[in-house]
Amino acid sequence: MATAPKVVVDIHTHMYPPTYIKMLESRDEIPMIRSFTTSEDPRLILLSAELQSLQDAATSSKPPGRPLTKHYASLEQKIHFMDTHGIGISVISLANPWLDFVESSVAEKTAETINNDFSEMCSMHHGRLYFFGTLPLTAPLDGILAAVQHLKSLRYCRGIIMGTSGLGKGLDDADLLPVFKALETNGLTVFLHPHYGLPNEVWGPRAPEYGHVLPLALGFPMETTIAVARMFLAGVFDEVKSLIFVLAHSGGTLPFLAGRIESCIVHDGLVASKRVGADKATIFEVLKRNVCLDAVIYSEIGLKAALDASGTTKVMFGTDHPFFPPLSSSEDGEWESVSLNVAAVNKALGKGSDAASRVLGANAVEILRLDEL
Amino acid sequence: MATAPKVVVDIHTHMYPPTYIKMLESRDEIPMIRSFTTSEDPRLILLSAELQSLQDAATSSKPPGRPLTKHYASLEQKIHFMDTHGIGISVISLANPWLDFVESSVAEKTAETINNDFSEMCSMHHGRLYFFGTLPLTAPLDGILAAVQHLKSLRYCRGIIMGTSGLGKGLDDADLLPVFKALETNGLTVFLHPHYGLPNEVWGPRAPEYGHVLPLALGFPMETTIAVARMFLAGVFDEVKSLIFVLAHSGGTLPFLAGRIESCIVHDGLVASKRVGADKATIFEVLKRNVCLDAVIYSEIGLKAALDASGTTKVMFGTDHPFFPPLSSSEDGEWESVSLNVAAVNKALGKGSDAASRVLGANAVEILRLDEL
Repeated sequence: MATAPKVVVDIHTHMYPPTYIKMLESRDEIPMIRSFTTSEDPRLILLSAELQSLQDAATSSKPPGRPLTKHYASLEQKIHFMDTHGIGISVISLANPWLDFVESSVAEKTAETINNDFSEMCSMHHGRLYFFGTLPLTAPLDGILAAVQHLKSLRYCRGIIMGTSGLGKGLDDADLLPVFKALETNGLTVFLHPHYGLPNEVWGPRAPEYGHVLPLALGFPMETTIAVARMFLAGVFDEVKSLIFVLAHSGGTLPFLAGRIESCIVHDGLVASKRVGADKATIFEVLKRNVCLDAVIYSEIGLKAALDASGTTKVMFGTDHPFFPPLSSSEDGEWESVSLNVAAVNKALGKGSDAASRVLGANAVEILRLDEL
Repeated sequence: MATAPKVVVDIHTHMYPPTYIKMLESRDEIPMIRSFTTSEDPRLILLSAELQSLQDAATSSKPPGRPLTKHYASLEQKIHFMDTHGIGISVISLANPWLDFVESSVAEKTAETINNDFSEMCSMHHGRLYFFGTLPLTAPLDGILAAVQHLKSLRYCRGIIMGTSGLGKGLDDADLLPVFKALETNGLTVFLHPHYGLPNEVWGPRAPEYGHVLPLALGFPMETTIAVARMFLAGVFDEVKSLIFVLAHSGGTLPFLAGRIESCIVHDGLVASKRVGADKATIFEVLKRNVCLDAVIYSEIGLKAALDASGTTKVMFGTDHPFFPPLSSSEDGEWESVSLNVAAVNKALGKGSDAASRVLGANAVEILRLDEL
């Protein structure tokens, strides 16, 4: 293996283009953007756990959601953030919930506009920006497949970002398979990202005291894990053996739970007969074959499990910018959420090691062909 | 550190005493035991995901739940299982859902009977069996505290097993704190074990095709993780700093997600002010101070994360017997579910190493005082 180049690549970094901001401003339910007298910036409200009712929110001393700062929509700010943290290349993507909520009849057109917006942003910083596009998953199948072709034609596009709802019934929906096959055929990668979390009831009666911690820290990774396990049990990965799924947040909890998943399959009479055998990949094999992981995990303990599960050549650095800004210092300076993930890579693999360089950038260059322009 | 003794100890192993079996046989809703014409053994039905309706179950070709074999209630079978797998000592406990469903007025008496049953079983195999007792959590507080005193007086008792419902509102319920304090004062350990999983809707429309895999492989560990994170955010561990919680299934997903939990706290304005500071333990500190983990994780990848998070002296071998029996070989022979967990320890720590011996037995002897009789 040649020495890995030293460029730092951020594969998990979101942008809201102006078209998308306008769409959220026009809405009366989540996702939406709203102004409140208790907040200087307008508020971006994305999760059902963040909002009981608009009326309560208007009178509450703490406004719902998060401030919509310049970090969400300003390309200049993205480049400033990259420069501040020594990030050479970013693979930007629309943030959740993407176009999951868009009316079917306008979905294809909306996706086209947004994907062109992303394409334009990348061309303004040629060589520093690439992107994951967005599919109009609420459109008829023809429209979704047309969007795949459109994305394939866009110079800076390297794949798509998608959530876990698929066409509305999850990613183990047989009707979604033609979309995965089209992505595989066209060499586009899937960046799989959570949004819906878990039903609010699991957080218990004291949930309001815990802010956004439980839905974000646990709901998000658990949602990803459940979605991928359902795909695995449905045999999706055996249908698209060369399609790469980049799993957000180091795979949710998949590296940690893979052994338990495999054991539960081997010990379940109904499932073992379908999933165990020479022609069926185990979850461990899928983690090596179809899966890449980002390194957005904030600790070397989890990162080591991610590296063990998918391999040192398959894990890629990310920041989750513009989410998790620093609370007690300027958003224009260094972000602790970034330094935690850099520290995790250095602790797990050794600062300056070839393996660390791979995870910090070289893997992404290779896997997402960031040297082909 | 002295060389660890070589005894193998199983700290995660369940028994249903006859009193408990009778109680389940008398019930019309889960948990219950029922006979079906499609099954030789009576069926033990524990989870809501296992049963849509009794009527459907009676006519289905596949009976619900799992066969109630001799492994559940026979002490002789437990000893045979231990001998087959080279297990010197077992710390037996009632299986889920314990006494969570018992009517308040009879709960204290039921717990007393069951705890005496366990005590009696242990005395019949002096030195080879210890137990985690069961609290009557549906009884009035006085009754629960009386049960703690009763357990304290029982020679072979080393702690209690409990689920995540607490008094009905979860383990972050302030009303549960006196119980935890009484356990701490009396030197009893809490073995925390899942039962309720996640709401069925998260498994999606194809769930029936996936057998019990998703609720067991994902629902169980996610339930444990959520329960412990809620306790952490509520400050429970700061109130009972010397109470040890042994977390089932290597902590659910806690070792993997600890970094994300800590980062989400640091980045949440509402929570950071309450949870971050010199006098507040981080989740990593709690994992070292209040938490022990079992090694029931079926893979060295997850096990390494568990060892990293809690420490090599805090992880203890377990089998989850009588659950996960072999499908294709005799239940009287070796169980693959056991050999997977032994292999994980050997791969993570080196077969025959002192650290492996610690996890396989010596840690449990030390932590649960299995040399004091």
